[in-house]
Amino acid sequence: MPERLIVIGGDAAGMSAASQARRQRPANDLEILAFERSSWVSYSACGEPYYVGGYVTDLTQLQARTPAEFAARDITVQTRHEAVALDIQAGRVTVRNLETGKDTIFGYDLLMYATGSSAFVPPIAGRDLAGVHVLHTLDDAQAVRHRVAAGAQHAVVVGGGYISLEVAEALHQQGVKTRVVTAAPAVLERTLDPDMGTLVTERMRAIGIEVFSGVEVHSLEGVEGHVRRVDCPGGMCFEADVVVLGLGTRPEVQLAKEAGIPLGETGAVAVNPRQQTQVAGIWAAGDCSEALHRVSQRAVNIHLGTIANKQGRVAGINIGGDYATFPGVLGTAITKVCDLEIACTGLTEAEATRAGLAYHAATVDSTTTAGYWPDAEDMRLKIIAERGSGRLLGAQIVGGQGAGKRIDVLATALWNHMRVDELMQLDLAYAPPFAPVWEPVLIAARKAWETSQ
Amino acid sequence: MPERLIVIGGDAAGMSAASQARRQRPANDLEILAFERSSWVSYSACGEPYYVGGYVTDLTQLQARTPAEFAARDITVQTRHEAVALDIQAGRVTVRNLETGKDTIFGYDLLMYATGSSAFVPPIAGRDLAGVHVLHTLDDAQAVRHRVAAGAQHAVVVGGGYISLEVAEALHQQGVKTRVVTAAPAVLERTLDPDMGTLVTERMRAIGIEVFSGVEVHSLEGVEGHVRRVDCPGGMCFEADVVVLGLGTRPEVQLAKEAGIPLGETGAVAVNPRQQTQVAGIWAAGDCSEALHRVSQRAVNIHLGTIANKQGRVAGINIGGDYATFPGVLGTAITKVCDLEIACTGLTEAEATRAGLAYHAATVDSTTTAGYWPDAEDMRLKIIAERGSGRLLGAQIVGGQGAGKRIDVLATALWNHMRVDELMQLDLAYAPPFAPVWEPVLIAARKAWETSQ
Repeated sequence: MPERLIVIGGDAAGMSAASQARRQRPANDLEILAFERSSWVSYSACGEPYYVGGYVTDLTQLQARTPAEFAARDITVQTRHEAVALDIQAGRVTVRNLETGKDTIFGYDLLMYATGSSAFVPPIAGRDLAGVHVLHTLDDAQAVRHRVAAGAQHAVVVGGGYISLEVAEALHQQGVKTRVVTAAPAVLERTLDPDMGTLVTERMRAIGIEVFSGVEVHSLEGVEGHVRRVDCPGGMCFEADVVVLGLGTRPEVQLAKEAGIPLGETGAVAVNPRQQTQVAGIWAAGDCSEALHRVSQRAVNIHLGTIANKQGRVAGINIGGDYATFPGVLGTAITKVCDLEIACTGLTEAEATRAGLAYHAATVDSTTTAGYWPDAEDMRLKIIAERGSGRLLGAQIVGGQGAGKRIDVLATALWNHMRVDELMQLDLAYAPPFAPVWEPVLIAARKAWETSQ
Repeated sequence: MPERLIVIGGDAAGMSAASQARRQRPANDLEILAFERSSWVSYSACGEPYYVGGYVTDLTQLQARTPAEFAARDITVQTRHEAVALDIQAGRVTVRNLETGKDTIFGYDLLMYATGSSAFVPPIAGRDLAGVHVLHTLDDAQAVRHRVAAGAQHAVVVGGGYISLEVAEALHQQGVKTRVVTAAPAVLERTLDPDMGTLVTERMRAIGIEVFSGVEVHSLEGVEGHVRRVDCPGGMCFEADVVVLGLGTRPEVQLAKEAGIPLGETGAVAVNPRQQTQVAGIWAAGDCSEALHRVSQRAVNIHLGTIANKQGRVAGINIGGDYATFPGVLGTAITKVCDLEIACTGLTEAEATRAGLAYHAATVDSTTTAGYWPDAEDMRLKIIAERGSGRLLGAQIVGGQGAGKRIDVLATALWNHMRVDELMQLDLAYAPPFAPVWEPVLIAARKAWETSQ
């Protein structure tokens, strides 16, 4: 009789774990059942703004694998099935078929907890009006796109994070008059310092997207059940027939909490480097679980598909009987807004301060290519180094084509605990179409070294 | 009375050293005289093909700094002045004014030997015909461009290295029927393995540049002193009214050799990590000097402006009285040919074999962005790892826009002696316009790890 692995959540983390476990253990040794409450498995949430913007024309393009493909590898995935109760003593999970409402109880030997995250919806009046959306699942993306197709004219995006700006640009490009309203002092304030974020705000305004920072949304007003206006304190209000609430995501831990799986200080499920929870036989990975931040050495809870995939794979290797550990994250992220590439890794100034580190920041304005190259575009690169030691702590980039992915060099340097004086000696690739002869990464490192001493 | 530093060679290495030394020692402490035999100082040789191709319209754009700018910092540079003799016992250099033919002897306290490299011209018949060029100095670039402007119809580029392919594309884009003829079995064979190089050959052929590999050039035939035909063995011949000999460069060490400055096994000037030659008070940097290869741990002589700048800076810091060392190179390089981005770092398969290393190569075909992104372009990435240990040894990339600069991640990993199983866990940046959710670098590392065990 094979052991049974139940996977709760059929997206990146859960299905990576299932796939990896299956690579190591055949069906006669391990039965794998996965349950997913939405209609989709293994999808790219990151692609949703581009579906709204029309770059991606078919939602199925955002699905990496279908249930049928998993079935062909002896992995059973049931969509529209939600785990509603978990008994960790008895090793049983209650699963509800969301189509029929019928509950079934399944016993398990091993459990993969990969419930992901859900969009945070603040308790503001009017949030249930038609035309008010979040952008989290593919179904959400479809709903927003339908709203645009139905003739939306005025959009308000509430929040200033990556997804908010991406969807704002998408709506703008679809011809919808778009405003971004964020309570934070600047857009992208969790990943960029203000001197970097301001470049993004300027560019958005230049193409006609209005940006209001430091502005709270007070309530949403509707007519006949449909949103018509966004009200802010002080009498400020915006016309809106579509509102996207982009206020971040929260780890989906309700079931774990009720069942007694311990959470960490971030509120997500606590795991060790093998992705084991503190309950024997139960593993967790992805948005619902914590990860070690390699710079601050603290637990963090970052919601990115790349982390979910990697953690899921590590869990799967361990479930499969082998040994693997997840080495942690740097918080590396990238996006593109209005042709500006925006990227970060490691700590911002604010985070360095919170971590109690003395640091110095060096900012360099350069070009993506040799200065004389006709396609040269501006880029600004900021490096944060520990004062005295010169240890790299973090970096941020905002610039034209080719700027953003340079963050990976800094992420790799950060991963390897490099000091900025070592970084400035790196043998990086140069040719006029790709970089100035002194690569901006190296110039910034040099400046950070000289000023951190 | 100040000490006197004489700099022989006024390009990247020499002028970086001069600038850095001046930052540390004012004019009343150190007099700096630099001599350059060409008409230009501090120029970007890498930009020359783009001047031929018309992307760069003015040669002065390729000059980073002018003699007047150096003069403003109390650094005297004389162009068209060649050092013709060097007495290391007496500390004297004889400098010839190439305009007047007059020689002057200068005493020095410190000498910076930064003579660079010169184009290799093989002893083939007809090499002195009009229309036969090398592409090394800005004057060469100007001569080739004039040839095109004067109505050249048929070009033959002899050689298959970076500069050869870049100039071939430039000539082709200027409407000249262009052929590349190389004795090597494939183009770029010193930096790419054949499975990667073939992608470049295919692309060049697809746009109409003929490529003949494994073909020696036997002689150049002319009419009235001007080249008309390139003859190869076996009766193969090509019409040509412009020929570019792109057969590589050699370190310019004649003066050092005659003076008794010891050379290393590569034939370039031997230096220690501080860029000191084996003669007290004489420093060397750039194309004319050796560098440590960090992977093979052998001396190499690679001609790149990035290395020259960095070595020159190190020499200048030491001349200035401080302490710095040059940590070595990886052989990182990049170019763009026919919209293909081509990059490498570390060892190729052939180099790994020569270094006596047992290795395994893993090649991955992926895309530059998420597969569903409309601008997704193909890219092939190859990773070479030591068998058993999994230590990264080298990498090569050929692909569309955004592919090439990924080499910097691999260069940074290589610099830090990463194993491929560590590399595959890196927290690199992901968003649909920039990468698939599993970044190709990580997939290749994973494949290299799995197959190297």
